Amino acid sequence: MKHEVLSQLKEFLSEEQISTNETIRNHHSKDESYHTPVFPEVVLFPRSSREISHILKLANEKRIPVTPFGLGSGLEGHVVPVQGGFSIDFSEMDDILEIREQDLLVRVQPGVTRSMLDKALKKHGFFFPVDPGADATIGGMTATNASGTTSVKYGVMKDQIRNLEVVTPDGEIIHTGSLAQKSSSGYNLNDLYTGSEGTLGCITEITLKVYGIPEHITAARATFKEMTEAVNAVTSIVQTGVPVARMEIVDESSIRQVNDWMETDYEVNPTLFLEFHGNEAGLNQDVAFAKEILSDHGCTSVTFEKDTRGRMKLWEGRHNLAYTYTHAYPGRSMMVTDVCVPISSLAEAIVFGREELDRQGLPGGLVGHAGDGNYHAFVMIDKIDENEMHKAEQFNEAIVEHALARGGTCTGEHGVGIGKKKYLEAEHGASLSIMKSIKKALDPNNIMNPGKFIDIG
Amino acid sequence: MKHEVLSQLKEFLSEEQISTNETIRNHHSKDESYHTPVFPEVVLFPRSSREISHILKLANEKRIPVTPFGLGSGLEGHVVPVQGGFSIDFSEMDDILEIREQDLLVRVQPGVTRSMLDKALKKHGFFFPVDPGADATIGGMTATNASGTTSVKYGVMKDQIRNLEVVTPDGEIIHTGSLAQKSSSGYNLNDLYTGSEGTLGCITEITLKVYGIPEHITAARATFKEMTEAVNAVTSIVQTGVPVARMEIVDESSIRQVNDWMETDYEVNPTLFLEFHGNEAGLNQDVAFAKEILSDHGCTSVTFEKDTRGRMKLWEGRHNLAYTYTHAYPGRSMMVTDVCVPISSLAEAIVFGREELDRQGLPGGLVGHAGDGNYHAFVMIDKIDENEMHKAEQFNEAIVEHALARGGTCTGEHGVGIGKKKYLEAEHGASLSIMKSIKKALDPNNIMNPGKFIDIG
Repeated sequence: MKHEVLSQLKEFLSEEQISTNETIRNHHSKDESYHTPVFPEVVLFPRSSREISHILKLANEKRIPVTPFGLGSGLEGHVVPVQGGFSIDFSEMDDILEIREQDLLVRVQPGVTRSMLDKALKKHGFFFPVDPGADATIGGMTATNASGTTSVKYGVMKDQIRNLEVVTPDGEIIHTGSLAQKSSSGYNLNDLYTGSEGTLGCITEITLKVYGIPEHITAARATFKEMTEAVNAVTSIVQTGVPVARMEIVDESSIRQVNDWMETDYEVNPTLFLEFHGNEAGLNQDVAFAKEILSDHGCTSVTFEKDTRGRMKLWEGRHNLAYTYTHAYPGRSMMVTDVCVPISSLAEAIVFGREELDRQGLPGGLVGHAGDGNYHAFVMIDKIDENEMHKAEQFNEAIVEHALARGGTCTGEHGVGIGKKKYLEAEHGASLSIMKSIKKALDPNNIMNPGKFIDIG
Repeated sequence: MKHEVLSQLKEFLSEEQISTNETIRNHHSKDESYHTPVFPEVVLFPRSSREISHILKLANEKRIPVTPFGLGSGLEGHVVPVQGGFSIDFSEMDDILEIREQDLLVRVQPGVTRSMLDKALKKHGFFFPVDPGADATIGGMTATNASGTTSVKYGVMKDQIRNLEVVTPDGEIIHTGSLAQKSSSGYNLNDLYTGSEGTLGCITEITLKVYGIPEHITAARATFKEMTEAVNAVTSIVQTGVPVARMEIVDESSIRQVNDWMETDYEVNPTLFLEFHGNEAGLNQDVAFAKEILSDHGCTSVTFEKDTRGRMKLWEGRHNLAYTYTHAYPGRSMMVTDVCVPISSLAEAIVFGREELDRQGLPGGLVGHAGDGNYHAFVMIDKIDENEMHKAEQFNEAIVEHALARGGTCTGEHGVGIGKKKYLEAEHGASLSIMKSIKKALDPNNIMNPGKFIDIG
C-alpha cells in the first residue's frame, strides 16, 4: 500500500483504526472454509457510516479493492481479500441502536453478533429467529442472506429485513427500505442488498423484525432405520402443513460424532431433530399429529423434550456438528456443501449425496435443514493432497449438478463467495448477465469485494 | 403507428392478435382509478413468451413504448400507456401450467386471475392467500407486489414468488429464481422484478407457493365506540403474537355503506373484521385470547362466524367496499390512498386521515389492513371540479407526508404508477438514484412502461 494512501486514511481515521500488522492481516485473510487465504494490505476498523463513506470514496478514487469482514465465520471465502486492498472490520460497530418494542423491530450495527442480539432481546421477551449455527455477525448474515434451523417456520434473513443503511461505492449513505411492514414503493432494494455479499456496498445499519418468545416449545428426536424414511417423514410433515419450527435431518455418521462429542448414547441411525412452537393446546395437537406421521414413515423411536435444559442439550448436539467433525479430523480442512432442492427431490438428493461421498471415499457426514430442502455434507479434506482435493471438488460438482437438474440451487444459505462462482452460469443462464449489469451500474469501478460472486468487464 | 411497424408485427402475430380498434384501445387506456386515460396506438394479444420476445425486440429497435396490461384493476394508472405505443394484453396467456402438489407450488401464465387460480387449487386442497380484493391477474399482482387482507399471516406477493420467467427489453427470455425454497445464489432477481410495475420487462410465467386449506377457520366482527380503541386492539394482538390470518379495520361511514349494499344491520361504529386459521385446539385458544384483548380495549360486541356461509357473508361486505362507494356516488371517481406505517403509528395515522378527510370536506371512508399498518381512504371525487381535485391531492399529500415522517411508505400495496411518482424522492432520498441506475442498466432505451414509476435520463 502506498504511503500516500495510508496518510490519506489518517485524515479521517485514528492510528489504532488502521492496521498493517501481520497477525491482524492474517486473521483477515481467511474464513472457516478450505479456501486459500490471501492477506489484505491494510485492515481498517471504522466506527461510523461517515468513516466508511470516507474510506469508500478514497478506495473508489484510487481503485483499491474493499472486502467487508464480519467475524470470518463464512464458508465460501467471502471475506478473503483475493485482490488485496482494504479489509473493513466491523467489530467496532457493534451497537444495538434501538429496540422498538411496539413495532417488534430492532436496529443494529453490522458488527453485532447473533448471541449479543439474542441476549439484548431476551430482556424484552423477544428473540431473533435466524440461526445459521455459527455465532455470526448480523452484517455477515445479511450480506449472505443466511438462514438455518428455524427458517422452515420464520423464513430466512431477507424475510426479517425492514431497512438497511448502506454506503455505496461512491461514498453515498442510502437507506433501502422503511419501517413499514410492507411496501410497493419502487424497486425492492432491501432484497437486492441482502445477499449481495459485499459486492454493492457496505451495510452499516440493519433494521430487523423480532418475534415474541414462543409461549410453549417442544423439541423431539426421532430415529429411523433408513435415511429415505426420515426424509419422507419430513416431506409429509411439510405437505400436511403441520407448523414445525425446526426440522433437521442428521445421518448416522453425524450421530456418531454427536455421541463422541456430547457423551450421549443416541441410537446410531438416521435421525430427525424437530421443534414445535405455539400455544399449549395448538402445540399439543401439532405434536400428536406429527407423531402419527413420523410413525407412519417407520420411525422406530421418538423422544420429546419440553424443559429448557433438555431442549438445549438436544440442539447443542446439532449445532456443534461442524466442530465435532473438525475435532475428529485434526489437520484436515472442512468443505461444506450447500445445495437446496424442491422438497419433492430431497430424498433422492440426500441418497445421491451419501452415495457420491462414499464413492469418492471421502470422510464426512450429511445434515440438513430438511424442511427447506437444504442439506449440507461436511467433507473432511487434506488440502495438501491434490488427489483428495480433486475428489472433493468432483463430489461438490456432482451434487450441484444433481440439484440444478431438479430445479434447485447451488447454495441454499452459505452464498457464492469463491466456491460457488463457477456454478452461477449453469444455475442462472441468461439472467447472470442481468446480475452483471446491476453490478456494473452500482459499482462501476468494481472495488467492492472484487474477484468473487460475479466477474464484470 | 407507422404502417411498417404493423406489417413487422404481422410477421410473428396473427391478424386477430393485433388491434387498432377504438373500443379495444379505449379499454386499454385506463384502470379503475381517477387517472386520466391515454389511448395506446396498438393493442397486442400475444400467446407465448416467444411472441413477446419478438414484440420487445421490435419495440426496442424502434423505441416504441410498451405497457403491459392485466385486467385494468390497478389503482395508480400503471396500465395507462401515457406515451402511447403498444399495450400488451395478457388475456390469451391464462393457462395454469403445472401444479406441483408435493412441492406446494403452482406455475401460471400472467393472465390467470385470482379466482381462476383459486378454483384450480381447490381441487387439490390448496389455496393461494394473497387477496387484494379485486379479481386481478397474477401477472398484475406480481408486477405491483400486491397484498391484501391475509398478508398479516401469509405475507405479500413477493413472499410467494419462487421463480419468474421474464422477457427483457432486448427480447431475452430469462428466469429469476428456482424451485428451491431458499437460495443465496446471486442477486435476488425474484424480488427485483416483483413490484417493478412493468418497467424492466414483461413477466411471462410465475411460480408461486400455495398453501393447504386451513383445517379450521373462524371469522369475527368486533365493534368499538372509538376508532383508536379498535386500532389499539389491533396493535395489542400483533404485539402479543396471536396468529391472526386477517385483521381489517372499517370505519363508521364504511359500515354504513356495507349495510346499504348488503342489507345487513351491522352496528354503525368502528369495526374490526378478523379471521383465525389453525388446528381446532390451537385456534380455539387463539380466539379466546384475542377475545380477551378485544374486550380489554373497549370492544362492545363481538360476533363469531364458524360456518362457510357466515364467513363468506362477513367478508363479502369488506371485499365489496370499494364498489359500494362507487355505486353510492354515481358520476364520481374514486381516489384510493394507500399509506403504510409502523404499527405503533397506526392509530394516529388513521385519526389524522379521518380528520384531514373531514377538514377537506371530501366524501369517503377509511378501511385498513390494520395488522400490517396499511390503511386506505376511499375518496369520492368529481374529476371535473378542479377545486375538489386539488383538495383530494392535498389530502393524499398530507397523509403521505404524515406517514413518511413516521418511517412509513407512500404505498403499502397499490404501487407507484402515476399517482405516487412524486413521493419517491421524499421516501427514498439518495436511493432513488440507485433505482434509476438499475432502470437505466436493464432498460437503457426506456421502452418499458415509460413515464411512470421513475424517470431516467
